[in-house]
Amino acid sequence: MRQAIALGQRGLGRVWPNPAVGCVIVKGGRILARGWTQPGGRPHAEAMALAACDARGATVYVSLEPCAHHGKTPPCSEALITAGVARVVTALTDPDPRVAGRGHAMLRAAGIDVVEGVEADAAHAANAGFLLRVTQNRPFVTLKLALTLDGRIATASGESRWITGPEARRMVHAMRARHDAVLVGAGTARADDPDLRVRGLGVGHQPVRVVALPQLDLDTDSRLGRTARDAPVWVLHGPQTTAERVAAWQGTGARALACPVAQGGQGLDPAAMMQALAGQGLTRVFCEGGGMLAASLLRAGLVDQMVVFSAGRLIGADGRAGLGALGLTRLEDAPRFRLMQVQPVGGDVMQVWTRAG
Amino acid sequence: MRQAIALGQRGLGRVWPNPAVGCVIVKGGRILARGWTQPGGRPHAEAMALAACDARGATVYVSLEPCAHHGKTPPCSEALITAGVARVVTALTDPDPRVAGRGHAMLRAAGIDVVEGVEADAAHAANAGFLLRVTQNRPFVTLKLALTLDGRIATASGESRWITGPEARRMVHAMRARHDAVLVGAGTARADDPDLRVRGLGVGHQPVRVVALPQLDLDTDSRLGRTARDAPVWVLHGPQTTAERVAAWQGTGARALACPVAQGGQGLDPAAMMQALAGQGLTRVFCEGGGMLAASLLRAGLVDQMVVFSAGRLIGADGRAGLGALGLTRLEDAPRFRLMQVQPVGGDVMQVWTRAG
Repeated sequence: MRQAIALGQRGLGRVWPNPAVGCVIVKGGRILARGWTQPGGRPHAEAMALAACDARGATVYVSLEPCAHHGKTPPCSEALITAGVARVVTALTDPDPRVAGRGHAMLRAAGIDVVEGVEADAAHAANAGFLLRVTQNRPFVTLKLALTLDGRIATASGESRWITGPEARRMVHAMRARHDAVLVGAGTARADDPDLRVRGLGVGHQPVRVVALPQLDLDTDSRLGRTARDAPVWVLHGPQTTAERVAAWQGTGARALACPVAQGGQGLDPAAMMQALAGQGLTRVFCEGGGMLAASLLRAGLVDQMVVFSAGRLIGADGRAGLGALGLTRLEDAPRFRLMQVQPVGGDVMQVWTRAG
Repeated sequence: MRQAIALGQRGLGRVWPNPAVGCVIVKGGRILARGWTQPGGRPHAEAMALAACDARGATVYVSLEPCAHHGKTPPCSEALITAGVARVVTALTDPDPRVAGRGHAMLRAAGIDVVEGVEADAAHAANAGFLLRVTQNRPFVTLKLALTLDGRIATASGESRWITGPEARRMVHAMRARHDAVLVGAGTARADDPDLRVRGLGVGHQPVRVVALPQLDLDTDSRLGRTARDAPVWVLHGPQTTAERVAAWQGTGARALACPVAQGGQGLDPAAMMQALAGQGLTRVFCEGGGMLAASLLRAGLVDQMVVFSAGRLIGADGRAGLGALGLTRLEDAPRFRLMQVQPVGGDVMQVWTRAG
């Protein structure tokens, strides 16, 4: 099952809106075939593995309950039955209402031995994005911060290139590729004119580039505007922007998504933003700042994972903070995270923290 | 030699103003004796090891050139000659003008085979404090910061207990014990009323507790004032404080050291402070903040090592920054550090960085 889960992860970032599932078919102590959800979300993992072997009498390990509904492909449960497998071991029940136990039931009804819940925690973590989209209508959000040791991202004059080294930046590109979308706020988009594509890794697909632009006030001649036909760009905008601006952005090839503004704030409502992105099928969003957007997501409890790159530099309190105001009064209200991983990356340190509680 | 250097480190924090030297005596492939500088700075490492064996014809590994001068103890070079050792291997020449090669020369003049410079870099790092005191008239400075992931030390309202967990705080106590002194600024002393002693580790000796108090405006009834007879307290004060205040602090049992004020600033001149501390014999100082003092030391290029504890919390830009303003305009002027160590400590992450360039 661990191998099935690991195989599934290969699809992260390019199978949305589908889950990134892995499948291993075993018979007589030997692995007959492996499969994982293919780019675009199909064929499914089970179909890939079944196509590669004669699975009669075999045991099938699959990281998520096989689907039971006729979508763009026939249901995997049916395919497993047709293939004559003896036993199916799964990690999770698929919460998709079209499945939700029906896959397991179909298999059992056909006389197949079904074992559920094996390595459920690991599979849950690996598919957190898909599970959140289906159960909470929002994507899994990773917030990346690249900071000096004192939490700064730029000098007072705005100089910020580069805080971290090339190895850390390369790691960021690899992380982008494992998310469905990269998200930045309006300030960052205007100040840095970022491209946000995955570069230098030989990665064929590109995540969606999403910009939160309450007023849609980013030049369409920006890098994002100019390249919107080369890789997807979505602009999330508020209700007060003009139809002209929306049309201009649509003219670049970008998708424009309207979003309500946060109560009492100038920014977009973070929960509504995430709902809009989940509504478009996104399961994993990689937020690269800036500080205002990051703070808004944190205040709303929408950050599931933090990736912090610390560079061995100090800028001081007169530099720009990497995170905006959270408006806390009590320390116990400070968002808390649990350490998952820490390692040197080039001359920097990478820390991965997951939401605690 | 590595063992000699490691043995020497046992003395860190309690042999000042002397170096923390280690010594291993070997004969016929067997270790005859080990020694290290004893608390208070004597007996020296060589004397300890020589006293524990018959060193005739042996090879002596010692992490610093044996002394050549009659101080409170007879010179170690003489003792090595008297003991009839065949060979002395050292890592470093002692820059103390009373030694400065004379130890090596005495040994050679007596017909002893002398090899110098073995594991010199490691020995240099291990004795950086002593070497800086002798060559630059300042101690080695470690700056500790305990921060949230976004570089904060307290909420806007000042709540700061505790950012990091008990394991990290325990590690801080262990670090205090390996330094000659703990240093805090006036703001921290007033706001936190810290004790600054090493607690809970069964450590018998205490580092000197130093407070930078430009106006000497800390209540003598503070924890530091009340405990100044239990473990040393030194107050560094500016020229404008009153004789009455100096007398009051001296009355607590503290030592008062006058220091010039920084040009154009309100704080004490950081270089003069370090000079005053080196003048009193300190070789290793552990600065625990606050942000103003830390910034002043960094601006003056006086921080040799940074220890950063990162807690899995976020406070946001409206919280209190862990480091004051550095007044940088260009990113390339930002103080730079090189990663030496990174590891989880309890639920926090500890990073050790050493000054780069």
